[in-house]
Amino acid sequence: MATTLIARYQVQPGKAELVENALRRMAEAVRADEPACLLYNANVAVDDPNLFCLYEVYEDDDAVIAHRETPHFQEIIEGVIVPVLVRRERELFRRAVA
Amino acid sequence: MATTLIARYQVQPGKAELVENALRRMAEAVRADEPACLLYNANVAVDDPNLFCLYEVYEDDDAVIAHRETPHFQEIIEGVIVPVLVRRERELFRRAVA
Repeated sequence: MATTLIARYQVQPGKAELVENALRRMAEAVRADEPACLLYNANVAVDDPNLFCLYEVYEDDDAVIAHRETPHFQEIIEGVIVPVLVRRERELFRRAVA
Repeated sequence: MATTLIARYQVQPGKAELVENALRRMAEAVRADEPACLLYNANVAVDDPNLFCLYEVYEDDDAVIAHRETPHFQEIIEGVIVPVLVRRERELFRRAVA
């Protein structure tokens, strides 16, 4: 069964555009380099332009671990996005229905 | 920009299998009858077999409203699932990156 990761990023005021552009680059890198990532979406809350919610589906748990070890994760997520976050949350699921 | 709905269902103990089967039927009905629903996934939390998280993406807000008015929403979600829920939450997003 596929592994789903839901991540929430509460972004510092004024940094939403920077984060959205970085996530767009991230999605392109994931698509190019991570065939075991089945889905990579980023959403912005309707009632809070500074709240991002990522929905990521991987073939298995190993692919989630591998994702975090990629150069683009280190460069874009840890290097560009994390420094402008107020809060970061992460939940793991098994995808039951698709 | 597409509209994303994330719904959380905390299910009564002993009812997870019933809910998972109902969500499978629901996904089939959505696929058959709602072309404006771009994605319909249901996930179960790794650390709580009674916590479901639905990830649904629609072409626009109107499609979200139409979804709630379908016979399968009324029959399966309101009729089968809601009666066995402890808690139900719902958040709306704009999909920014896909």
